[in-house]
Amino acid sequence: MSRSGSHSHRVRRWCLIAAVVAVWVQQVEGVWPLPQQLHQSADRDCLSPQRFSFTYGRDSAAQTGCSVLDAAFKRYFSIIFPDFTTLSENVLQYMWSEPQPFVVSVSVKTRGCDGYPDEDSDESYMLSVSEGQAVLRSVSVWGALRGLESLMLVINSSTEIVDFPRFAFRGLLLDTSRHYLPLYAILKTLDAMAYSKLNVFHWHIVDDPSFPYQSRTFPDLSNKGAFHPFTHIYTQSDVIRVIEHARMRGIRVVPEFDSPGHTQSWGKGQPGLLTPCYKGSVPSGSFGPVDPTVDTTYKFMESLLKEVKFVFPDSYVHLGGDEVSFACWQSNPNVRKFMEKMGFGKDFTKLESFYMESIMNMTAALNKTSIVWQDVFDYHERPRSKYVVEVWKQGCYLCKMRRVTKAGLKVILAAPFYLDLPIPTHSWARYYNVRPLAFRGTDEQKKLVIGGEVAMWGEYVDATNLSPRLWPRACAAAERLWSNEEKTLNADLAFPRLKEFRCELLRRGIQAEPLFVGHCRHEYDGL
Amino acid sequence: MSRSGSHSHRVRRWCLIAAVVAVWVQQVEGVWPLPQQLHQSADRDCLSPQRFSFTYGRDSAAQTGCSVLDAAFKRYFSIIFPDFTTLSENVLQYMWSEPQPFVVSVSVKTRGCDGYPDEDSDESYMLSVSEGQAVLRSVSVWGALRGLESLMLVINSSTEIVDFPRFAFRGLLLDTSRHYLPLYAILKTLDAMAYSKLNVFHWHIVDDPSFPYQSRTFPDLSNKGAFHPFTHIYTQSDVIRVIEHARMRGIRVVPEFDSPGHTQSWGKGQPGLLTPCYKGSVPSGSFGPVDPTVDTTYKFMESLLKEVKFVFPDSYVHLGGDEVSFACWQSNPNVRKFMEKMGFGKDFTKLESFYMESIMNMTAALNKTSIVWQDVFDYHERPRSKYVVEVWKQGCYLCKMRRVTKAGLKVILAAPFYLDLPIPTHSWARYYNVRPLAFRGTDEQKKLVIGGEVAMWGEYVDATNLSPRLWPRACAAAERLWSNEEKTLNADLAFPRLKEFRCELLRRGIQAEPLFVGHCRHEYDGL
Repeated sequence: MSRSGSHSHRVRRWCLIAAVVAVWVQQVEGVWPLPQQLHQSADRDCLSPQRFSFTYGRDSAAQTGCSVLDAAFKRYFSIIFPDFTTLSENVLQYMWSEPQPFVVSVSVKTRGCDGYPDEDSDESYMLSVSEGQAVLRSVSVWGALRGLESLMLVINSSTEIVDFPRFAFRGLLLDTSRHYLPLYAILKTLDAMAYSKLNVFHWHIVDDPSFPYQSRTFPDLSNKGAFHPFTHIYTQSDVIRVIEHARMRGIRVVPEFDSPGHTQSWGKGQPGLLTPCYKGSVPSGSFGPVDPTVDTTYKFMESLLKEVKFVFPDSYVHLGGDEVSFACWQSNPNVRKFMEKMGFGKDFTKLESFYMESIMNMTAALNKTSIVWQDVFDYHERPRSKYVVEVWKQGCYLCKMRRVTKAGLKVILAAPFYLDLPIPTHSWARYYNVRPLAFRGTDEQKKLVIGGEVAMWGEYVDATNLSPRLWPRACAAAERLWSNEEKTLNADLAFPRLKEFRCELLRRGIQAEPLFVGHCRHEYDGL
Repeated sequence: MSRSGSHSHRVRRWCLIAAVVAVWVQQVEGVWPLPQQLHQSADRDCLSPQRFSFTYGRDSAAQTGCSVLDAAFKRYFSIIFPDFTTLSENVLQYMWSEPQPFVVSVSVKTRGCDGYPDEDSDESYMLSVSEGQAVLRSVSVWGALRGLESLMLVINSSTEIVDFPRFAFRGLLLDTSRHYLPLYAILKTLDAMAYSKLNVFHWHIVDDPSFPYQSRTFPDLSNKGAFHPFTHIYTQSDVIRVIEHARMRGIRVVPEFDSPGHTQSWGKGQPGLLTPCYKGSVPSGSFGPVDPTVDTTYKFMESLLKEVKFVFPDSYVHLGGDEVSFACWQSNPNVRKFMEKMGFGKDFTKLESFYMESIMNMTAALNKTSIVWQDVFDYHERPRSKYVVEVWKQGCYLCKMRRVTKAGLKVILAAPFYLDLPIPTHSWARYYNVRPLAFRGTDEQKKLVIGGEVAMWGEYVDATNLSPRLWPRACAAAERLWSNEEKTLNADLAFPRLKEFRCELLRRGIQAEPLFVGHCRHEYDGL
């Protein structure tokens, strides 16, 4: 028997064993989300954990000591060889009696290992997988992370990938006010976001029902406004942990402090902030939105926003501005007097615009970009300052995109990507009909569409059902936001790929629900 | 300070600590499902694990050594004192420097500790909780289990309960064919069933997509028909474990071997069982329902049913009989010849009835009661033998109940209790409109309505989303099947009680999803 024949026999033997002991990365039919360019050929040899290594290319600006990539190498090694640490030496020796080396060489052009991803981050990468090696090249460490993610899915076949995201902003909103989400649930969500190449965690951290953010400036906000002042809060160190966990995965953390509506919980720890509602000529005892007529409100907001700037490194802050009910303002004689003084007549949208503009100016003075819900734009279509509009209302969202971009503002599309309500599971397929740029407008306008966002509101969702409701549905939106639209228009074609990718998520411990009848090699067993 | 004053001070101190260390059973506003008679008064002292005990009453037929109750005492002690094993002796000593004793005395009239619950089991109980003691009396150990369950929710207030189920059959269907459910997921479901006083696990164990039941008589059925012959099967010992876990909780296990339709997976390991479909005058290569025209089919079914009788102790076997497509039978010349010979004309419902009657006779000869889906009754409303009909079709299910009971057959209502599809979470409220006896009929007819069943079909459900989709929705059905209908007609009144009960489920490790905005003291954290 020839040398090579004997070798190939050994390789087959190990592959067979590997299949049984499930050491091997699951064979998937493609990469999710679909790369811009992908060429794959025949499968290669199996990999041996003893001869496998990640290295930095010689010309790479980042080298050992690069926090983001060192940590990524550690994570991805475990994803490739999940059972490595539990296998006995005997078994390992038998499997790879003549192991073949495999080297993943990663080169980035710019260092930036200690920075944060932002709206201008270059996430492009080139990946070449061949016999014995993979070569990954990118401009930034964030691009390298995306490339490593793809590598996991193609590591056992010769592959050439040139890839970059279609949109820079690919967000996911979690609502930690309507139900409290334990830290673990947030970190796990960030893991799955990275697997899907989503890159913005929009943290809708507070709202009417509870104020779980523990503020250093205003500790009473959570002391009195959280569901529980010790167990149902995010401490400063919790927040730091979320931001660092996200950074390691190339994910931005954009906090939302939604006002002037959606602030009932704020009022408990900050007396005087909310508008007292009146019944006739006397206060009714209940409170409405933030009171936009008093100086103390703006002083409070300025202090809070200063803290937010200090705590959250991202250049964006979400200021909310949605769904403000005017009834309470209208009932309050001081507010009516203020309206008169300002010449607003009876148009309370002017009052809201006044308030929002004030806090957007504060935000700009802090060198941050404001995002607001579309309501703010709806009320005042000639913006005096630059802000980013998030389109969330159902109906003709494309018409709205057209108007917002025509006004010269950047826009994020959330409306068709809501997934908190339990519509039949296969509704992921709906995302394949969403075409964020399919409105009449100039090229300049189209460039103002910076991305989209899946929104997981919390009315019916907490840690018990968050994961299966998010995954794999959010993966479908992630693909539409990353990949070439023309190559990903068909949900039927996506179905088998998404089914495979969902099994891969399960293998990595993400509680992703099934799309339809079938099975995965690794089922979720809950413990 | 008086002695009693000092004592009450100590008690308050320990309660305060207990609240912080969460040793105490969560205070709930009521019992779920609502007992038939319930009187509660002021709260009593807190309990000390050192002075707490379960005992058998002197006059009890069951004493130490009673498997069902000994195991229940062990389980419920941990539910009352979940953190007992993790608290240091120091803390325990401080908390209960002067502990008060509390004794739960359980007396049952009939022993039966080693038996199985069945359709005639008496589940009634009487419970009296007062200072220092609880007295629980029941006819059977199964009633004692229900009483212990109620005790968990009222243990810290003086309470008198007289209770019994409205319906004897309170079922939950799991489908382990469309997706495989790991053993752990089934056992956990049985736990939650017991918490809700559901008492029949209807195990839809096989179907078209896979045959996970490992048969001792026909091992090829799972070898070739399961998703995987080793990992995605239920071995004999798995099945025994499920049955014993269920028995310990007073739950019957009714297996379903659905035929002649829904049997595609059977055909893989049992060649010749299914009808070859024809295209014109030649076999098309695909197969239809079980072939009811050949002797080998009946021999096979008899062997299989003999095994089922041996493995599953319950007196009921579900034989399916639903959704048989006649197209394949019609295409097959041998079937057409058989129809002619039997004088069935072109009426294939007669052929199905012929088949079902044959296997129901086999089942009767094995001393088992057949349950079948309503289709079997629909096709032949004058039953020649006694069987139990399960009504599942939407539409006027009450009309069907009337017809079935008029024909003298027992009936189980499933139609309005489906919960596999992700209809908005609060749809549990719909169950409060279901009135299984609200059809015109005699008292005799009403007595034939033996209960109802929630059905969790598996198209979109596996271990990743089973629990949050089941719970707490199934609890609502459980209440309607256990409690007095007139006292539980209002979903709005049930809402705060169900919210509390859902928190209690969370505390016990059941991944029950939220009903609406809010929080529980113990949130689910997934690990």
